[in-house]
Amino acid sequence: MRTVEWDDDLHQVRLIDQRLLPGELKYISYYDYRQVAAAIRDMVVRGAPAIGATAAFGLALAAQQSIAKDRDTLLSDLDQAAQILRQARPTAVNLDWALKRVQAVARSVTGGAADLRRAVSREAQRIADEDIAINKQMALHGATLLEDGDTVIHHCNTGALATVDWGTALGVIRMAAEMGKKLHVLVDETRPRLQGARLTAWELEQYGIPYEIISDNAAGYFLSTGKVDKVLFGADRVAANGDVANKIGTYMLALAARDNQIPVYCVVPTSTVDLSLASGDLIPIEERPPSEVLNIQFDGQKVTPAGAGARNPAFDITPNRLISAIITEKGALYPPFDVNLRRVVTS
Amino acid sequence: MRTVEWDDDLHQVRLIDQRLLPGELKYISYYDYRQVAAAIRDMVVRGAPAIGATAAFGLALAAQQSIAKDRDTLLSDLDQAAQILRQARPTAVNLDWALKRVQAVARSVTGGAADLRRAVSREAQRIADEDIAINKQMALHGATLLEDGDTVIHHCNTGALATVDWGTALGVIRMAAEMGKKLHVLVDETRPRLQGARLTAWELEQYGIPYEIISDNAAGYFLSTGKVDKVLFGADRVAANGDVANKIGTYMLALAARDNQIPVYCVVPTSTVDLSLASGDLIPIEERPPSEVLNIQFDGQKVTPAGAGARNPAFDITPNRLISAIITEKGALYPPFDVNLRRVVTS
Repeated sequence: MRTVEWDDDLHQVRLIDQRLLPGELKYISYYDYRQVAAAIRDMVVRGAPAIGATAAFGLALAAQQSIAKDRDTLLSDLDQAAQILRQARPTAVNLDWALKRVQAVARSVTGGAADLRRAVSREAQRIADEDIAINKQMALHGATLLEDGDTVIHHCNTGALATVDWGTALGVIRMAAEMGKKLHVLVDETRPRLQGARLTAWELEQYGIPYEIISDNAAGYFLSTGKVDKVLFGADRVAANGDVANKIGTYMLALAARDNQIPVYCVVPTSTVDLSLASGDLIPIEERPPSEVLNIQFDGQKVTPAGAGARNPAFDITPNRLISAIITEKGALYPPFDVNLRRVVTS
Repeated sequence: MRTVEWDDDLHQVRLIDQRLLPGELKYISYYDYRQVAAAIRDMVVRGAPAIGATAAFGLALAAQQSIAKDRDTLLSDLDQAAQILRQARPTAVNLDWALKRVQAVARSVTGGAADLRRAVSREAQRIADEDIAINKQMALHGATLLEDGDTVIHHCNTGALATVDWGTALGVIRMAAEMGKKLHVLVDETRPRLQGARLTAWELEQYGIPYEIISDNAAGYFLSTGKVDKVLFGADRVAANGDVANKIGTYMLALAARDNQIPVYCVVPTSTVDLSLASGDLIPIEERPPSEVLNIQFDGQKVTPAGAGARNPAFDITPNRLISAIITEKGALYPPFDVNLRRVVTS
């Protein structure tokens, strides 16, 4: 199962529609890069690494859609497509990173439009394939930090569904379980879109890893009563100083972990690190539609009053002081994060 | 509108069914104290002061139901009823407090069973009437701490629905608004039972106070971006040292407020203070059924996998170090809470 796939013969991007899980596992095929941008925006696909690969394939699709006959016209069409794909979501830097990487390869191609189309497809495919290898590498580094018998709290979804396959933070949990460590996962349901209750729970079912869902509010209780050994999550963007933008709620979770001396691990590929931003307060935070907060039912009842409004920031910033280690494919990094991130990302 | 009422002619306890709001405002009448206990357990009525008044009326009902002809038999029937009512929910101390107060009055009555029945009804009614007066007194003390233009985060429901009428923390907000202060309320939706999104939002609609609903996860974001001036909540039990048991999620909210130097106000009647417990870790924390976490729908979809389990602690402990002031009907108390709580509660 791949969350994101490219069919090089049919020229289509294929995505699992994550809005329907766990009820239904349905794939959607896209033949227009603008539809791919919309799928990212509407969260058919989500998760920073998965968004990156999807955007790369979106560019491969744009290259096929373009009727350009020469290199320069095609490059210009790709620039336009990249701009539309880039605007789909602002916080996860992997989107920008993947687009820039594919565009750089495109610009470096000598030859005609056909060579360029081939190179773009190949580079996008390489990003996707590498994502899986990188995830497994991260998982190996992270799994050594989990001990047999650990109970961990996990926020949002960072599994196969958040990547091309395998996962980041959930990939660490999966790897440790495959190594034979007995783990118990307390799954933050992750309001408002419930990626934990829907997607992480669904993945853990597949992997046979024991879990229980908790409301995000309950994390503090379990942390304070000594029942939790580690906290794990991914990230959508890590600033140069190690501040982390991740799914809304991560900051409060990390605060509660720190208040109880529980280690906090952020698991990300180096493609999620943005050295161009000195600190987390420079990371753009997406605010999504109020309907994501308002459109829920509890016990079959519509929850909110008809006239209710809502605010819906999709991410928050967890300051580096609350993070014990950032686990990348190049190893676990410890403070000082500014020095260690720069060393690893630029190496 | 009273959340909890006693009809002394019909011998019935009348409750608003809070499970149906905001969709429907429906009253249920109870003619058996065991049904009243079940209504508390099933959260037809909730909120520490409301539970206290309901339990008191439950005892008035038990006195009427009892066929005892003499004082001692009736006292014994009341003891039995009190035991059943007391077991309905473990965390809010107001339940125990109200039962003990009515029982003490019953025991002090000289005269026959009829005198005793009358005294029990009257004392229960007095508890309910006093609750409203106490709430307004608290509200006056608390309202002076809110400033014109403040944005406040409020957790759970602490309004008229959580009390007999008026409210505790929400009563403070309401009083400040009635004084002409312009306030904006960010309403924590309060998973898992969504008392904020359902009940607090509904009340704020009635009062014409501007509000927006946020997922509980988003509180940290708004606190960290300087958009919030105060945090307010109630409590189900306050230990002698000022540790506060309140709706799950309060601890993480208070941590995030403290991390950003935002004042945290806990608004409670002195009946919620339990001087018999030295600290919060001695307060019993109720764990409610997993179904409250699992039975939600998002965008019309069932959220959790069929086989999913959940943990559902209903309260957490917020340590006294995270609380700026405890606002009671006798004024706002500041640290050291142990000294000041004892002084005020025993005065």
